[in-house]
Amino acid sequence: MPDIALPEGLPGITGAFAFRPETAKPMRELPEVLLRGPSSLTSAEREMIAAFMSTRNDCYFCQTSHPAAAHHAGADYGLVDAVRFDYPSAAVSAKFKTLLAIAGKVQQGGKQVTPEDTQRARQEGATDLEIHDTVLIAAAFCMYNRYVDGLATYSPDNPEMYDKMGAVMAHEGYLKPAADTAVRA
Amino acid sequence: MPDIALPEGLPGITGAFAFRPETAKPMRELPEVLLRGPSSLTSAEREMIAAFMSTRNDCYFCQTSHPAAAHHAGADYGLVDAVRFDYPSAAVSAKFKTLLAIAGKVQQGGKQVTPEDTQRARQEGATDLEIHDTVLIAAAFCMYNRYVDGLATYSPDNPEMYDKMGAVMAHEGYLKPAADTAVRA
Repeated sequence: MPDIALPEGLPGITGAFAFRPETAKPMRELPEVLLRGPSSLTSAEREMIAAFMSTRNDCYFCQTSHPAAAHHAGADYGLVDAVRFDYPSAAVSAKFKTLLAIAGKVQQGGKQVTPEDTQRARQEGATDLEIHDTVLIAAAFCMYNRYVDGLATYSPDNPEMYDKMGAVMAHEGYLKPAADTAVRA
Repeated sequence: MPDIALPEGLPGITGAFAFRPETAKPMRELPEVLLRGPSSLTSAEREMIAAFMSTRNDCYFCQTSHPAAAHHAGADYGLVDAVRFDYPSAAVSAKFKTLLAIAGKVQQGGKQVTPEDTQRARQEGATDLEIHDTVLIAAAFCMYNRYVDGLATYSPDNPEMYDKMGAVMAHEGYLKPAADTAVRA
């Protein structure tokens, strides 16, 4: 049960967004650019970084919804789970693994990222923009995960609801209250 | 020295913002609303929460610039430092201390915030919106601090530059590249 009077029945971050539309606006725009905007990383890869971070930060709502978004963006649930729980063994590129290593460092703190981490990513073909976006996705989910859990938002436990919400996130994006639509449909 | 090719000479987050204007836009809008928008918390109080979080996250650029912003928003450096380093002894209200306690929990992780923490804040007169905004400021600085340090952005060490930047942040806000102006003046 939320610690403050969030609107009832809205799952996870959408309840907090409805409570405070002024801050919701930029907080919806950031993932729209970062996870769905033009990029040499696929949306599935970027959603997998979001899922990985949310798993490391142990945020139930985000570590359930973003894997669904990654799945509907073109990864599949098995691959997403491999990335979430044991990325060095996952069937993803060497470059993507170096980016996940950077994301894992960011979870611990920005200063944990070393020039060697960046160098390894560059050696595997990562561009500066890909490295930048990885750091920012990782940092952003250190915000979103804390926001969702710090307010004790409502986390439904129906897996089908998350799958449906992930489809809306992947195909319609973050700008409109997509998840509300999904959970109320 | 930044790990990726950020524009030279721009301090801290402004270099990262110049590198990626698409993500900078919502990332500038969020603090504009959260730290400077209409609120029953003063801007000085909100900047002190930002300074406190940046100190806990040990981000040099942010823990130097946001105290300056708090100072120019109406606190003074002595009070800001008391809040940063030993808030239970600081000359701030009992209500504000309960909000700082919540922010400190958010730094550790969203799940660290308990219903008792929220209840204590409410008993001291905090509104749901104040509690919400405290959680979000704290969460947001877990993003900004990691972004600044994860990219190893340029951190000048000239205290006067930070004081000048803080004045611009407090009086002109976050929407335009204020700090660039300050450091280049």
